[in-house]
Amino acid sequence: MGPKTNSRNSDYAHVYAVIMAGGSGTRFWPLSRRKHPKQLLDIFGHSTLLEQTVARLEGLVPHERIYIFTNELVHGEILQRLPRIPARQIVAEPAQRNTAPTIGLAAHEILRRDPEGVMAILPADHVIKKPAAFRSALKAGCRWAATECRSVVLGIEPTRPETGYGYVRLGELAKRIGGQRILRVEKFTEKPKLPVARRYVASKRYLWNAGMFIWRASTLIQNLQRVQPKMARELEQIAAAGGIDNGRALKKLFPRFEKISIDYALMEKLSGVFAVAADIGWSDVGSWAVAYELSQKDEEGNVRPNNSLSIGSAGNMLVSDREFLVTIGVKDLIIVETGDALLVCARERSQDVGKAVRELERLKLNKLL
Amino acid sequence: MGPKTNSRNSDYAHVYAVIMAGGSGTRFWPLSRRKHPKQLLDIFGHSTLLEQTVARLEGLVPHERIYIFTNELVHGEILQRLPRIPARQIVAEPAQRNTAPTIGLAAHEILRRDPEGVMAILPADHVIKKPAAFRSALKAGCRWAATECRSVVLGIEPTRPETGYGYVRLGELAKRIGGQRILRVEKFTEKPKLPVARRYVASKRYLWNAGMFIWRASTLIQNLQRVQPKMARELEQIAAAGGIDNGRALKKLFPRFEKISIDYALMEKLSGVFAVAADIGWSDVGSWAVAYELSQKDEEGNVRPNNSLSIGSAGNMLVSDREFLVTIGVKDLIIVETGDALLVCARERSQDVGKAVRELERLKLNKLL
Repeated sequence: MGPKTNSRNSDYAHVYAVIMAGGSGTRFWPLSRRKHPKQLLDIFGHSTLLEQTVARLEGLVPHERIYIFTNELVHGEILQRLPRIPARQIVAEPAQRNTAPTIGLAAHEILRRDPEGVMAILPADHVIKKPAAFRSALKAGCRWAATECRSVVLGIEPTRPETGYGYVRLGELAKRIGGQRILRVEKFTEKPKLPVARRYVASKRYLWNAGMFIWRASTLIQNLQRVQPKMARELEQIAAAGGIDNGRALKKLFPRFEKISIDYALMEKLSGVFAVAADIGWSDVGSWAVAYELSQKDEEGNVRPNNSLSIGSAGNMLVSDREFLVTIGVKDLIIVETGDALLVCARERSQDVGKAVRELERLKLNKLL
Repeated sequence: MGPKTNSRNSDYAHVYAVIMAGGSGTRFWPLSRRKHPKQLLDIFGHSTLLEQTVARLEGLVPHERIYIFTNELVHGEILQRLPRIPARQIVAEPAQRNTAPTIGLAAHEILRRDPEGVMAILPADHVIKKPAAFRSALKAGCRWAATECRSVVLGIEPTRPETGYGYVRLGELAKRIGGQRILRVEKFTEKPKLPVARRYVASKRYLWNAGMFIWRASTLIQNLQRVQPKMARELEQIAAAGGIDNGRALKKLFPRFEKISIDYALMEKLSGVFAVAADIGWSDVGSWAVAYELSQKDEEGNVRPNNSLSIGSAGNMLVSDREFLVTIGVKDLIIVETGDALLVCARERSQDVGKAVRELERLKLNKLL
């Protein structure tokens, strides 16, 4: 990939997508379950978030260069849903070890396959409303990562003082590629308190860290060797044993990794990281309330299926494909029915759905989890 | 039955109960359906309202002297639930013709069987929290109806200016029987407007007409002959053909009756009616809101089954025996789940449940009715 501005897709023949689909989020209970997590929900469009993540790469990263890392509970369903991705590239991790070990494992696989390989880390459970803008930002990041051998983060311009995300502080503009701004990152920050988050947003010097990263596989491995030498050695051990193709070695060695995110293990400790300021209509759909905001509404602001009747009710989100739903005189509720469980939640309280799930865990109601 | 005050139950050997169980109320949708109306719901105690109505008569009216009039949709279920009542006395009317024709039919049956028969009309879908007081009021009414050959209504002291009920205006006290007051009725009134209802309640001269009446069967038939001669002739025709035992005649002749209530057909037109002022803990449970009031609540005022979790929620009524219910941050809702339908309704709007059912009828969603 040369530093030209008018690039062809053949310029991206070394780009690999690594889709992180191991999440077991509880925030969309009762629709999301251990065996049916958020990335496999299809309420945010015509297909699941995971399938949308794959579809978004069309024309840029072919199926042969897509990897999906997930857990054993959902591995089977993902294999069925995405038959065009080579089955060996859909990897069930034997244990949940956060993002750093997974990314390291992917880096060795890609490096083995392509010494020039550039890897883009993409979460499987986010909504991106502007897929063309996303591809443009991704391309710019990949070019910069390839030519400069740097770490790149796709950052999102904050629209509210969110305390649930990490932020990156921006330095000077380094380059424009295909209309995309590449900026120096001065610092990664942890989730801020609200007054701090407000300052960040007002300053216009911060982007949200949405968990999308780009490196050459070789760059990543070198960085890990320097900053996380123990993890780097353990990764080499797995790679030497056959990597993702040696299930037995994976089962034995992978669970030994420390649970640690790539942000904490690596990104916060590096200097010379760059960000693409990506205006891509991003949302991590972190709660039912956000799902409501993203969905199409009727005249009274209700998100509801055809098999429903709304009398004097406004601002509700109704989800069920089994039962006929009737609301009378209710406002701003999340109502989700799944055949074995029913949630009725004030929209403004939807961040507490996780609490309910933890309570079900405590009560050992495993059938509902 | 003599006019003694200390009566034995053998004094009531001529008393027959006529339970009106033909209602097809829609106010407890989605729990109540055409085939499962309110009188067959068991959410108001340990058995259905109909079974409670029968149980309340224990020690006073044996099963052999109980009649149940209902419709064809629920006839089978009632036969199963009440195997100790002679099957021929559980009558499916071939058409819904309101109360007057049904009561006339019952009167001929009872008169044929017992010329001294006294009949008590009892709705099957009411709650009576003081069954002993109810029996005492019923006894007093039966004695008065038997000795004086008069029409008697069991009236309820109003506790609120209800506009959904008829009222009776009281005249002078005629007698005390077993601690029960028998009063002259000056007038039956239709459902009043709110200011009128307020005046009624304040005056202490009115009782609610709860649809419980007592006559000698012979008295009733004589009154009908005088006030409703056409209906009386049609009733005699059915009686001559075999009455409730001739299903074919019933099917042919019964639907010809005018749809008319006994209140309108007869009671409002009679003079010399008496009331028992009955303090019996009565409720017609006319809506989910009333069901909520009558039910046992947790510390937060929720009526909810064991298979539920309530987080920051108060004043709700949750009904489901299939699904696990979770509420978060919601107040004063009625939530009812039945496997094919879900209702979420503001408690103060529960009188609008009937509206929803009419809308389902309009949409021809017969499966849900």
